[in-house]
Amino acid sequence: MKQEITIYAISDSLGGTSQKLLSAVMAQYPDLIFNNSYRFPFINKESELLDILQDAIKDDAVVISTLVDSHLAATAREFSRVNHLSYLDLMNPFFEIIKEKTGTQPIEVPGVLHRLDTEYFNKISAIEFAVKYDDGKNPQGFLESDLVILGVSRTSKTPLSIYLANKGYKVSNLPLIPEVPLPQVLDKVDRRKMIGLVCDPDKLAKVRSNRLDALGLTQATSYTDIEKIYEELDYSKKVFQKYQAHVINMTDKSIEETACIIEEHLKSLASK
Amino acid sequence: MKQEITIYAISDSLGGTSQKLLSAVMAQYPDLIFNNSYRFPFINKESELLDILQDAIKDDAVVISTLVDSHLAATAREFSRVNHLSYLDLMNPFFEIIKEKTGTQPIEVPGVLHRLDTEYFNKISAIEFAVKYDDGKNPQGFLESDLVILGVSRTSKTPLSIYLANKGYKVSNLPLIPEVPLPQVLDKVDRRKMIGLVCDPDKLAKVRSNRLDALGLTQATSYTDIEKIYEELDYSKKVFQKYQAHVINMTDKSIEETACIIEEHLKSLASK
Repeated sequence: MKQEITIYAISDSLGGTSQKLLSAVMAQYPDLIFNNSYRFPFINKESELLDILQDAIKDDAVVISTLVDSHLAATAREFSRVNHLSYLDLMNPFFEIIKEKTGTQPIEVPGVLHRLDTEYFNKISAIEFAVKYDDGKNPQGFLESDLVILGVSRTSKTPLSIYLANKGYKVSNLPLIPEVPLPQVLDKVDRRKMIGLVCDPDKLAKVRSNRLDALGLTQATSYTDIEKIYEELDYSKKVFQKYQAHVINMTDKSIEETACIIEEHLKSLASK
Repeated sequence: MKQEITIYAISDSLGGTSQKLLSAVMAQYPDLIFNNSYRFPFINKESELLDILQDAIKDDAVVISTLVDSHLAATAREFSRVNHLSYLDLMNPFFEIIKEKTGTQPIEVPGVLHRLDTEYFNKISAIEFAVKYDDGKNPQGFLESDLVILGVSRTSKTPLSIYLANKGYKVSNLPLIPEVPLPQVLDKVDRRKMIGLVCDPDKLAKVRSNRLDALGLTQATSYTDIEKIYEELDYSKKVFQKYQAHVINMTDKSIEETACIIEEHLKSLASK
């Protein structure tokens, strides 16, 4: 039987930071079961905090904190020390280093990360943009895009566009289909914005076949036929060449990795 | 002049965790300039690591590490100690606690978080689902959804759907327009899945007016008219009542906060 470990995540805001760290940590322990349903967002009273910490003792839990309020954080730290509770503070060690380096103190305002500021609204518009200009729905959007992603069916254009939109990029994408003429507006798009996605043909055949299964369809030959897939990919590579798109092979890469490659590519263009 | 602080983020994978923490930390220092362009993903050689740390000394930088390789992490820690470099390790303190609690060691495989596993593919399908069933495009999708989000124009249905899709939920949304009849399929949707978004009328008028500006349109009266907005919101509240939707007021709430409220709501339903 697998060993279990219980995590309490305490935050005076949403607790997104501790969830992100926790995901990265959990991935390193395939043989442990993490009981990660104890999340305590918006904690701002000492009494509330102490109740949670008492429960954590009962559950023999590890407590991770992203409290930005120094008084609450100190309370939690002291309580944990006295009661031998495993306690990990993600914010304060960083605050200490910044104080040491610059003499500056944090403003200690919870949730300031989720403030409805310009950056936030830019991100929201970028997401709406990506949904609106997904799947070549309106090729005029290419001209306003920071990135135009091209590729044959099932090369992850949509999730990649959305992921990059979450980072604030205005992204559109176009499926490449040999039988369908390319929109003329593509000729006017800045080549440096164009990304071409390719994938190993066998992998693509498998992904497409799974896709049809998921849709409850019987195998449509031309969509999953390996000869046809080779043809489609060849065609897409010609398009990439024509437009000098930056080509990325998606096989065995996650969306996050591909996005990271694209950002590095943009950085290298900017520094040229 | 604002004080500047340089951050080096070192990871043997993408470094997403340190970026998330860094965003939360930076938000606490509105008067500091963070120079955050030094990101070093996929570091797996000691020589590479030591070069970066040497540069960090020159730049008087703070180093944050999410290295999972214990040998590399120990090298960085020891180098930083000897050279008085500000160094923050996000993973190892957590690893230490888990070892103490369970005796288990991490597998130390970089990038395992981004593994192309079932969970990953579920997330990808959820994003594709949200894009496909955005804006009431195909109401049949409501029946397959984990959540159906309803609301008048500009109540953030799309970005909220995408954000929840990123967490793996299958989400569709429907704009409520008094003049357009509701799709019949709505009667068959499980009421517990329905979320209704409302917003303060004045706020909504402002958001819509900004929206038209952004689109370069002159003010369309009925869309931004406050009387009309009151009517629309009244209509939407009647729809929410009819379907017993869980109503959330979006005014002054970020997408992240609203999503958090929805997840808490789902949790409370599950525990009933």
